[in-house]
Parts: sequence; C-alpha cells; structure tokens
Amino acid sequence: MIEIEYDGTNYSGWQKQPNARTVEEEVMNALKYITKEDIKLYASGRTDAGVHAKGQVANFFLNSKIPTNKIVPALNSNLREDITILKAVEVPMDFHARYSAKSKKYLYKIYNSSVRSSLQKNYSYHVSKKLDLTKMKLASEKLIGTHDFKAFMSNGSSIQNTVRTIYTINFDKSHNNICVSFHGNGFLYNMVRIIVGTLVQIGTGKRPVEDIEQILLSKDRTRAGYRAPAQGLFLEKVHYSLDTRGTMYYN
Amino acid sequence: MIEIEYDGTNYSGWQKQPNARTVEEEVMNALKYITKEDIKLYASGRTDAGVHAKGQVANFFLNSKIPTNKIVPALNSNLREDITILKAVEVPMDFHARYSAKSKKYLYKIYNSSVRSSLQKNYSYHVSKKLDLTKMKLASEKLIGTHDFKAFMSNGSSIQNTVRTIYTINFDKSHNNICVSFHGNGFLYNMVRIIVGTLVQIGTGKRPVEDIEQILLSKDRTRAGYRAPAQGLFLEKVHYSLDTRGTMYYN
Repeated sequence: MIEIEYDGTNYSGWQKQPNARTVEEEVMNALKYITKEDIKLYASGRTDAGVHAKGQVANFFLNSKIPTNKIVPALNSNLREDITILKAVEVPMDFHARYSAKSKKYLYKIYNSSVRSSLQKNYSYHVSKKLDLTKMKLASEKLIGTHDFKAFMSNGSSIQNTVRTIYTINFDKSHNNICVSFHGNGFLYNMVRIIVGTLVQIGTGKRPVEDIEQILLSKDRTRAGYRAPAQGLFLEKVHYSLDTRGTMYYN
Repeated sequence: MIEIEYDGTNYSGWQKQPNARTVEEEVMNALKYITKEDIKLYASGRTDAGVHAKGQVANFFLNSKIPTNKIVPALNSNLREDITILKAVEVPMDFHARYSAKSKKYLYKIYNSSVRSSLQKNYSYHVSKKLDLTKMKLASEKLIGTHDFKAFMSNGSSIQNTVRTIYTINFDKSHNNICVSFHGNGFLYNMVRIIVGTLVQIGTGKRPVEDIEQILLSKDRTRAGYRAPAQGLFLEKVHYSLDTRGTMYYN
C-alpha cells in the first residue's frame, strides 16, 4: 500500500482516462518503469480534476521482489515533483484501499477577502463576500451523525446506499483563511464540495441556517447549494484499522 | 502607491528585462491598458526569479484622473491571477517605495522531511536532513542588531554601504514546516537566502554555531553558506512611517 500526496492543479483527477493526464496513470507508469510489470492500482477513491491529496491511498500486487523500503525513493525519482509517494507499507493480501477504509478526512480551504490571493489561487476557493462563520458552524452541526446525504451528491453517481456518517466538521480561521475539515466514514460523489457550496450560501446570508435540515430531508440535489470549486478540496487522510492478524500497523 | 501579491513561480523576478516574463512588466502593461499612459514603476526592491511576494510595494505618477478606489479592480481584471493588486493608496509626491521604506519583512519557508512535498514544492525549500532548530536559533541571535552583512551578500552588487540592522529573526514550526521570518531596516542582495543557507548548514550539523560570528566579521562571501533556493522566499511586507503632513496613513 502506498500513500500519495499530489498537487492536482495540472491533472484531470485521479482516475486513468484516455487523452488526459491523470495521477493514476503517472503512478502506474512509474510502477511499470521500476518493476517492468503492468500493475493495477486500487485507490481509496477518485479525486476530480484540480482536487489535491495529502494522503491518497492505493494498493497493488507485486510479483517483483523489491524491498518495501526501496519503493518510495524508486517511485519518487520516476515521478514529476507534483506527485509524491509518502510511504509504502506491506499489507495483508485482503487489504483493499477502498473497501478496507474505516474513515476519511477532507479539508476544504476558503480564502475570504474582498480581493483575491495570487499565492492561494490553486489551493483555495476565493469568496469575496464576508462569511458569517457562526451561521456556517450552526448549519454544519445539523450534518453531524448518520444521514441520507443524497441531496448532497452529484447526479450521475450509480451508488445505491447514500447513507453516510459524518463524525466531525471543524472550522479553523486564520486571517482571511478558513479551513473546513470533514471526518466521516465515507463521502458521496462531490459531497464535500456541495456541502461547502451550501454552507457558503448560508455564510453570506443568501439562505437561512434552517435550510440545511430541509435539504437533508428532501434528498433532492436541486435543493442543496452549488458545488464549490475543486481547487479548495484536499483529501487529507484515509484511516484503516489494525488488522486482526496484527500485521497492518498503518493508521 | 500599490501593494502587490504575486506567485513568483512563473516569472523571471520583478524587474523588467528583455525576453523574459517579469512581474514589473505585467503590472506596467495593465497600468498602460487602463490609463493609455506609459507609466514608470518605482518598487521597494527587486525580487529574483521564483521569489514570491505577499506585499511588494511600488509607486508611480498618474496624469489620468482615475479615482484611487477604482485602481485595484481595474488592474486586477487586467492581470493574470498569479499577480494581484491588494490595495492602492494616494501618497505624497515625495513618496518613493524604496527610499521611503522604513523596514522590510521577509519569510523563508523550509519543508523539513525525509520525503519531498508536492503541494509545497514551489513555496518552500525541501531539506531532507533533520534540522536542529535550537542551534539555528542560537546562530540567528548573533545576527540581530546592526552589522556589516557584506559576507551575506551575493557578489556583483554595486552597493557601497553594506551595514544593515536586523530587528528580529523568528522561527515558527508546525509539523514539518519551518517558517523563518526576518524583520530589518533593509536587506542586501540575496542576504536572506544566504543567511538561510548558512543556518541550514548549522542545523544539519555541517558546521558549528560559532561559525556565524566569524563569517560576519570576515565580510567575505566565500566564508558564508550557500544561497538557499528562491521558491522558499516571500517578501512579506514593506513598512513606511506616517508622513509628517499626515497624508500618508499607509503602514
């Protein structure tokens, strides 16, 4: 299993697709270069174009006998600097980056200032209207717990079970920077971005705090807010629990 | 007077030069576009290729009667997003962004981890060997005050007076990120980067803390450490004092 950091600015997202530069394909090419094998990657989930990752996780099966501690330097020296393998850990054969995941953490960064920021343009969502954080926090509390989040999922997803649990939503503010962190057992397609878009509408006073419960109950995508832009989103961490055989210490 | 933020990654520095994309030229072009005048810019100082600014300052003389509060939006809509005008303030005729400056603040960001960071590659200097911050702080204290910093200036500068005063050097550490901030009445060419290069040599144990005083006394560039890379450096702020006529409130 490898943990991967990437700057998503110049990629069409994680998943391999024709005629596009994707993170998955770059990692597969690097793996092929060092092993001479065609290796399939199993990721914790996709990320969209422009979305970043501090801790994406993927696993794969190797025939080559490469010592685990050589994998990180070997891959990194064959990857552009905007993709970095942070660690490589041997895991049990039944490990699956997606199905073994216990929870995930996302960050969403907002730059709240009347004037844009050049240094943060690829790494935050610029909101020029002053945000009322108190209202946003109040609204976010209604999302904590186990709910059907169908209203906060982009159409087109074929997923059946739209019930997820959000453990925490935290707000950190430092000058003009607002960082909203989400910890949950899983997230639907575009769920974090649609929640943020809705919270921003509440924060600017465009809609009342009370809307959030009605949106949730409606299970109707059209009732929720817009999808906040990709460049503010970071897949922060994927958590796995200790394997029963005690071989998987990664957490 | 305008205050400018820029991401220096894709620029050959501040100063206009042939066959290169520079921040100064981009701002001049935007000014020309909105005023139809050829306008000369007077900046607080140059920045090198790859160096960033959160608060570069430049002044200019306008014949056009553009209301000051229209300058920021007019310029920003004619600039690429990696250059932003943060504010525009009318200043006395004898104001000069360089000669009126009372002090400057620079930040230098170091990413200290065995593995590089993709998200910070353009905004920090990756040092893979573990740094001893205590030693670096001890060494930095020897630089506080008024000294001849000639040993920490790149050769080729024609400046005569190499005496400067450093008021503070502060270290902030958060996880793998080390931010060194410098506040002084002025800085010689490449002074911050050469100081950081020297401090990193001390932090990795390559040279002793005591070296710093000998380097300072030697006034010999070859005795100091290497010049740390451009992408870790940020011109944070240029400070001006209140004009005696009370018209200059910018600080």
